[in-house]
Amino acid sequence: MKTKMKTAQDYVESLRKLELEVYVLGERVENVIEHPILRPSLNALAQTYTLAHDPRYTELLVRQGLDDEQINCFTSLHHSTQDLLNKVKALRILGQETGTCFQRCVGWDAINALESTTFEMDQALGTGYHGRFVDYLRYVQQNDLVCNGAMTDVKGDRSLRPSQQADPDMFLHVVERRPDGVIVRGAKAHQTGAVFSHEIIVMPTLAMRGGDEDYAVSFAIPSDSDGVIHILGRQSCDTRKLEGSPMDVGNATFGGHEALVIFDEVFVPHERVFMNGECQFSRILVERFAGYHRQSYGGCKVGVGDVLIGATATAAEYAGVDKASHVKRKLGEMIHLNETLFSCGLGCSVAGAAMPSGTYLVDLLLANVCKQNVTRLPYEIARLAEDLAGGLMVTMPSEKDLNHPEIGPLVEKYLRGVAQVPTADRMRILRLIENLTLGTAAVSYRTESMHGAGSPEAQAIMIRRLSDLEAKKALAKRLAGIEPRGDA
Amino acid sequence: MKTKMKTAQDYVESLRKLELEVYVLGERVENVIEHPILRPSLNALAQTYTLAHDPRYTELLVRQGLDDEQINCFTSLHHSTQDLLNKVKALRILGQETGTCFQRCVGWDAINALESTTFEMDQALGTGYHGRFVDYLRYVQQNDLVCNGAMTDVKGDRSLRPSQQADPDMFLHVVERRPDGVIVRGAKAHQTGAVFSHEIIVMPTLAMRGGDEDYAVSFAIPSDSDGVIHILGRQSCDTRKLEGSPMDVGNATFGGHEALVIFDEVFVPHERVFMNGECQFSRILVERFAGYHRQSYGGCKVGVGDVLIGATATAAEYAGVDKASHVKRKLGEMIHLNETLFSCGLGCSVAGAAMPSGTYLVDLLLANVCKQNVTRLPYEIARLAEDLAGGLMVTMPSEKDLNHPEIGPLVEKYLRGVAQVPTADRMRILRLIENLTLGTAAVSYRTESMHGAGSPEAQAIMIRRLSDLEAKKALAKRLAGIEPRGDA
Amino acid sequence: MKTKMKTAQDYVESLRKLELEVYVLGERVENVIEHPILRPSLNALAQTYTLAHDPRYTELLVRQGLDDEQINCFTSLHHSTQDLLNKVKALRILGQETGTCFQRCVGWDAINALESTTFEMDQALGTGYHGRFVDYLRYVQQNDLVCNGAMTDVKGDRSLRPSQQADPDMFLHVVERRPDGVIVRGAKAHQTGAVFSHEIIVMPTLAMRGGDEDYAVSFAIPSDSDGVIHILGRQSCDTRKLEGSPMDVGNATFGGHEALVIFDEVFVPHERVFMNGECQFSRILVERFAGYHRQSYGGCKVGVGDVLIGATATAAEYAGVDKASHVKRKLGEMIHLNETLFSCGLGCSVAGAAMPSGTYLVDLLLANVCKQNVTRLPYEIARLAEDLAGGLMVTMPSEKDLNHPEIGPLVEKYLRGVAQVPTADRMRILRLIENLTLGTAAVSYRTESMHGAGSPEAQAIMIRRLSDLEAKKALAKRLAGIEPRGDA
Amino acid sequence: MKTKMKTAQDYVESLRKLELEVYVLGERVENVIEHPILRPSLNALAQTYTLAHDPRYTELLVRQGLDDEQINCFTSLHHSTQDLLNKVKALRILGQETGTCFQRCVGWDAINALESTTFEMDQALGTGYHGRFVDYLRYVQQNDLVCNGAMTDVKGDRSLRPSQQADPDMFLHVVERRPDGVIVRGAKAHQTGAVFSHEIIVMPTLAMRGGDEDYAVSFAIPSDSDGVIHILGRQSCDTRKLEGSPMDVGNATFGGHEALVIFDEVFVPHERVFMNGECQFSRILVERFAGYHRQSYGGCKVGVGDVLIGATATAAEYAGVDKASHVKRKLGEMIHLNETLFSCGLGCSVAGAAMPSGTYLVDLLLANVCKQNVTRLPYEIARLAEDLAGGLMVTMPSEKDLNHPEIGPLVEKYLRGVAQVPTADRMRILRLIENLTLGTAAVSYRTESMHGAGSPEAQAIMIRRLSDLEAKKALAKRLAGIEPRGDA
Repeated sequence: MKTKMKTAQDYVESLRKLELEVYVLGERVENVIEHPILRPSLNALAQTYTLAHDPRYTELLVRQGLDDEQINCFTSLHHSTQDLLNKVKALRILGQETGTCFQRCVGWDAINALESTTFEMDQALGTGYHGRFVDYLRYVQQNDLVCNGAMTDVKGDRSLRPSQQADPDMFLHVVERRPDGVIVRGAKAHQTGAVFSHEIIVMPTLAMRGGDEDYAVSFAIPSDSDGVIHILGRQSCDTRKLEGSPMDVGNATFGGHEALVIFDEVFVPHERVFMNGECQFSRILVERFAGYHRQSYGGCKVGVGDVLIGATATAAEYAGVDKASHVKRKLGEMIHLNETLFSCGLGCSVAGAAMPSGTYLVDLLLANVCKQNVTRLPYEIARLAEDLAGGLMVTMPSEKDLNHPEIGPLVEKYLRGVAQVPTADRMRILRLIENLTLGTAAVSYRTESMHGAGSPEAQAIMIRRLSDLEAKKALAKRLAGIEPRGDA
Repeated sequence: MKTKMKTAQDYVESLRKLELEVYVLGERVENVIEHPILRPSLNALAQTYTLAHDPRYTELLVRQGLDDEQINCFTSLHHSTQDLLNKVKALRILGQETGTCFQRCVGWDAINALESTTFEMDQALGTGYHGRFVDYLRYVQQNDLVCNGAMTDVKGDRSLRPSQQADPDMFLHVVERRPDGVIVRGAKAHQTGAVFSHEIIVMPTLAMRGGDEDYAVSFAIPSDSDGVIHILGRQSCDTRKLEGSPMDVGNATFGGHEALVIFDEVFVPHERVFMNGECQFSRILVERFAGYHRQSYGGCKVGVGDVLIGATATAAEYAGVDKASHVKRKLGEMIHLNETLFSCGLGCSVAGAAMPSGTYLVDLLLANVCKQNVTRLPYEIARLAEDLAGGLMVTMPSEKDLNHPEIGPLVEKYLRGVAQVPTADRMRILRLIENLTLGTAAVSYRTESMHGAGSPEAQAIMIRRLSDLEAKKALAKRLAGIEPRGDA
Repeated sequence: MKTKMKTAQDYVESLRKLELEVYVLGERVENVIEHPILRPSLNALAQTYTLAHDPRYTELLVRQGLDDEQINCFTSLHHSTQDLLNKVKALRILGQETGTCFQRCVGWDAINALESTTFEMDQALGTGYHGRFVDYLRYVQQNDLVCNGAMTDVKGDRSLRPSQQADPDMFLHVVERRPDGVIVRGAKAHQTGAVFSHEIIVMPTLAMRGGDEDYAVSFAIPSDSDGVIHILGRQSCDTRKLEGSPMDVGNATFGGHEALVIFDEVFVPHERVFMNGECQFSRILVERFAGYHRQSYGGCKVGVGDVLIGATATAAEYAGVDKASHVKRKLGEMIHLNETLFSCGLGCSVAGAAMPSGTYLVDLLLANVCKQNVTRLPYEIARLAEDLAGGLMVTMPSEKDLNHPEIGPLVEKYLRGVAQVPTADRMRILRLIENLTLGTAAVSYRTESMHGAGSPEAQAIMIRRLSDLEAKKALAKRLAGIEPRGDA
Repeated sequence: MKTKMKTAQDYVESLRKLELEVYVLGERVENVIEHPILRPSLNALAQTYTLAHDPRYTELLVRQGLDDEQINCFTSLHHSTQDLLNKVKALRILGQETGTCFQRCVGWDAINALESTTFEMDQALGTGYHGRFVDYLRYVQQNDLVCNGAMTDVKGDRSLRPSQQADPDMFLHVVERRPDGVIVRGAKAHQTGAVFSHEIIVMPTLAMRGGDEDYAVSFAIPSDSDGVIHILGRQSCDTRKLEGSPMDVGNATFGGHEALVIFDEVFVPHERVFMNGECQFSRILVERFAGYHRQSYGGCKVGVGDVLIGATATAAEYAGVDKASHVKRKLGEMIHLNETLFSCGLGCSVAGAAMPSGTYLVDLLLANVCKQNVTRLPYEIARLAEDLAGGLMVTMPSEKDLNHPEIGPLVEKYLRGVAQVPTADRMRILRLIENLTLGTAAVSYRTESMHGAGSPEAQAIMIRRLSDLEAKKALAKRLAGIEPRGDA
């Protein structure tokens, strides 16, 4: 079978051709690929290419495309619950391999949400979005592209609807309609992996109502389109990557990034527009994208959790406390919580079903349950990691102290745990735990777990809405011996 | 396709033929079927027969037997992960329909655990247990029998092994070997559904070591065999069923029961013996049975949870508080927790795999994670139910007060919530919540969730054992930049 | 110093003189004192008399009255934070001694709330309530009376204000004003200890607004006044007390009770009226009473928690598992949670302050925090108790089985734990845990912890209201370097 | 009354005279006072001087010294439970004012622990430590010194006792005894505030047993003694303080620090030695110091919690979500948890009692309960803060981006929340939350809450040990009707 799958090297080369406008810490970046703060993020994304060529993972990471060619799973549609399950397993492995957010799920989830939504829009409204979208998807698959799935608007005053804002640009919207396309203005916040994406797939951030038609817009554009500006978000400990002390970084190879992506009057040709004013379908699109993405976290965060559990167990071993009953219990609890998340990832996948287009969607109730747990359990896992790591994690001297000719030997002597493990290794594993609980990776393991794919309250609302409470009441009334009344 | 499935009526009639020795509250019971404390338990079990004939549930509750005939799923083997998933869904429905433990899973789980274990024993040791067991299973399927899966010994002093106990009978064991069979003595505690089972399938309660060979014994016998004595356990509020006030019972139709089953020198013929001294296989048998049963709770308790959520929502509606934001939030949280359990039930099922005999086993790590959550989340669901139900649940007068000619109208007047709902209905729904959180059904929703299929510590130990912590450490070390050392 | 303190015997005799109208399970009770369902409740209340004569507790349980005579603390005013602290300690001891609710705090808390509120009403409005109240209090102290503090109305439809209800009697109110007093109608629910109280002190159930003046009423009357009807609430396992099997009761000596107290046109003379239409003071009265009562739970429930912890430790010892690390850890966690409640009881006491009348009030914010914890932590303590008690707690045969000539010896044999402890003792301790977690005492340890002194949402609202969030914002803005703006 | 209290200016000047050996990021620091990474820590410590001169806080922060002069409370002994309560209140205020660890408690706690322990040592053993210690304390009070309380050794392999370690220096110990004093070697880890302390008070890190006499040593020395080396620990985001972007620091004024303090053959004259081989008193000293310090956290962390709550409420207001019911609820929950900690701080204080020397000690059981809660609740408070802050906290561009001539206006435009609040203020408050949950202050709000004054397991052990479980068992047995047996 022919393949269109890029290697990691192909991927990096393809990025060099992009002419992105990127700012980091107040400066325009010329070479995003070699920028030391950004590079670990590129490395993590590149793992989605590397591992797809690894025979151990072919079943999970390689799928069949629209034209039956071999494609990277991250550009594929889900054709079965097995595909949904494999997604969760694939993401867990990538989380294990990178110890961070590898940033490519969001585009995958956007593709699947748009495919079925455009199909149903066309069915209902006689529009022609689905064909356009499939053409676009073919292009993505053929070129094995990274797509940034851009949903979250900056939103301004949260108590106001898009068209009520003092500044009408607080939600991305169409500001001009031309014969050949539309001009949009606005900004998408928290854009994970944006700087290393070839494409940006824009979706509305919430269910639009009448009056907000200009905001009900979805489309795809190259990430270096005119008017697109990327401003990198600061992460905790980001500049440690500039210090030349890889040990202090914790995970010197892999990382993630988020950017504020500004659309300063950007042109979108019609063939790349997938929704344009159809408010009634914005809810469906948002819920499906969110559903897929809430499922994702039942895989990727579990993989990162595996790394944190392993790091914690190693730190305990290096301190000589791994046999203590409370240490074993707490490690067991971390595993329990982590596997609970995995169970939730599997559960919403196996309970999925086909949409009218034939593409499979996760069970939305269970996907929201999955994500709701992700907003809680990693925090407890992290707390237990901080418990077992001990205070040294945050009071250790730097790598430069360890390497200092005079005080280095004292650091080496006094921070040794069990005699047979070098102090440097002990420091490395503690720095990795710091990275995951307080540093750059905490941004993805904690904050992204909390807010990615929607904040906890968004899931709480969906859980209440998707559960058939009336059916449960009927069960209870019958068992309680309450006769049905006319009004109920 | 021919069917061997009993109706509920057939089932009840078949029980009449048994000559059981049963004691309830210090008295020998002549007619167990009509005993008012026991009857709700029979009704719940009978639902496993009734619903199997309900066309809505055919896919879930009817399966193919050893001879390709239609059988009740509760006597079937699992041939796929779909079968495992269907089990969880079936149990949820039965939990919803009965609002209590319906007591038939334990036999189902025993059947599946013994089938694969006996197969592997024969493969390893050249014994002939598997054929015997399949013959026995055929008999069970042909007659659509209820089997009590009897594992938990009374155990005496928990700090001592079976053969170390002051009284050697604290674990059931072979006390005599005869040409035609064995004589056993001992007692199994907490035997759910025992009084309405046709058969008792005995298994060892823990992994036996050398020296405990007489305790490594598994077999099946009719429940009215000579020497078998059933003594009913007291449940909270059990005698309310004797008072003639069905409202005060909460769930007057369905319930559960547990019995202490004593084996006072009971003869077991060889053809019904499935393990006899093979200590090394006792661990496998125990872990598989426990694994299946820990999965079960991700279905049945979720169904009961649905009832409790529905009852709580109804009580809130009857009090006029259902629109309050904290009430909606707490109901949403109950749903979230309940669906987390369901996700865990699905997760360990879809991650299952075939054993050498071809029968599918759940993923043991995830099944233990499922049950560990069952020891916690129903308690929080119950706490929230008690929160929303209000104090009236435990301070309400009795049905007899409501029906009293003089004070009845006062109770009717003063305990009314929203004007359009009769006070009696409000009292009924509160009694159902009381039943589930404090009364007879609390025994299954709380205590059985805690201890059924093994206490929380048993799962904690299994989770630690089944998780590959070394692999996680290796992930962490690689990301931290720690070079592999010779000794690790 | 002269004393007016009754002995327990005096107390019981004084009750005999009351002509109460009490209904239990649909029947009028002639002799409330000897009624087997009620008697344990009387015994618990009587302990407040007995222990006040115990020299070990003089410092805590005996105080000085209005006329400097020795009085039982339960009729006293708080004159210092030390008094408030001593209250918490006294309640803990009584909880330890009875293992249940001893029912006398509610009157104590009513006395203290009314004393300061009537003082301030008179100051503000020129009314004469305080003098009346002090006269009444002198009578209570002189006669060492039990006062039922009756606050909670039945409330009908919770979404409606008192005067909006379909039935105007859903909140107790004045229905007629006479020259010599008022006539009231309504009902108070969940009245703890009502049947064994000499007096009922009625207070409004919430802050009344304009239009609800008839509902802003507070007064005291003898509990056997014409028109007062007591209907006993059912408790889980209440009728076990009728069976003649004290072992199965768990705690055969002590218990509690709640009654629905109906005021069916009851006359109150003016000299016993302490509020009559002053809506603006109803909030203060409610909040102070609730504040004192929320403090109380930081004492009494801690004492009951001590009993539950002790019972659980004993059950673990009897099963031979007391040396297991998880058992020790869980017992430690139970103690931690229990002492957290005690700390909260002490904290709100020591942070108390004098009201204008000179009587000390607890810190209301911290008292609400205390009670909010009481709605949560006892549930976790109970869950841990159920964990360590094991399933036998709910599957054990009855005392009658144990005493049965034939099967008794089998029960004795098979339910023995460690060899040296009689089976009967093991059963007794497990029944006590059942009593506290599922039975009659669970009504006080669980449900009363949840709803007594106000449901959790009531405390949540108070905590938000009493905390100075603006001051906290100012702290944060200053540290963040935010300049004060004109509008903030 | 005369005063010996330094001003903040005096304090800073006095530090200039010290000749400390301090390393930061691999470099010897010449001017510790002006070092930008260290300066915020000095500022925080200086607040203990500044506020002591603020008339609002005189009652809390000024006390009477050994010679009846006015002293800063941080050098005082506790003479009553009121002193203990005032300590908790004082620490809360300092936490509020600085939003971080202000580092001076550890010396205060050391002083109080040593005073009573040396008194009892002398009583029991006839040693002369107490007089020496009082002389030393007088010197501290007279000069209003900051004392570093140095307890925690580096500990090496935690499974080994001090004298069993491969390297005997893993616990600080006496390596030589001279006529005029002793020579010690070792290192103390996690030394909060060490660089800005005048004095170091060394205590053993755990209860020493026979064979570890050389490790049972306590003494005080000037912090610039020969052989004392300070190596600064890295904190998350520490180098942001070097970037010239105060906004990105979050709290640009105040911070904390920890150092590894190495004792490389340090001479201690006899008059400064307070324990020297008396193993049997090392446990008492450790437990008392830990007890005081576990109490401290019920004050200081509550103050920091106030800041975090205020910052979160401000962020919610700036985003326009402060009226949402879930936001109000979560803020209320944060307050509830924070005030629970405060209650625990008050509780262990008011339950304190005088030691034989007359100095008051907190209730050790309740102090351990306090600290155990501190290892949990701030984590949940922080999680809720991260929930309400939203993802922007970790994806925001830098201050330099905001100030950039081209993209600055875009950042200003798109990151605005409610229209009337400048974007810069919104960013400032989010950076403060980042500082507290992920940045430099997270080291004190999270990790120090976890491990300071002993890790959670240390408290769990103490709670089990200090609670009289046998007394609780006796309560339970009596209520259960279990007759005392001869053996129990």
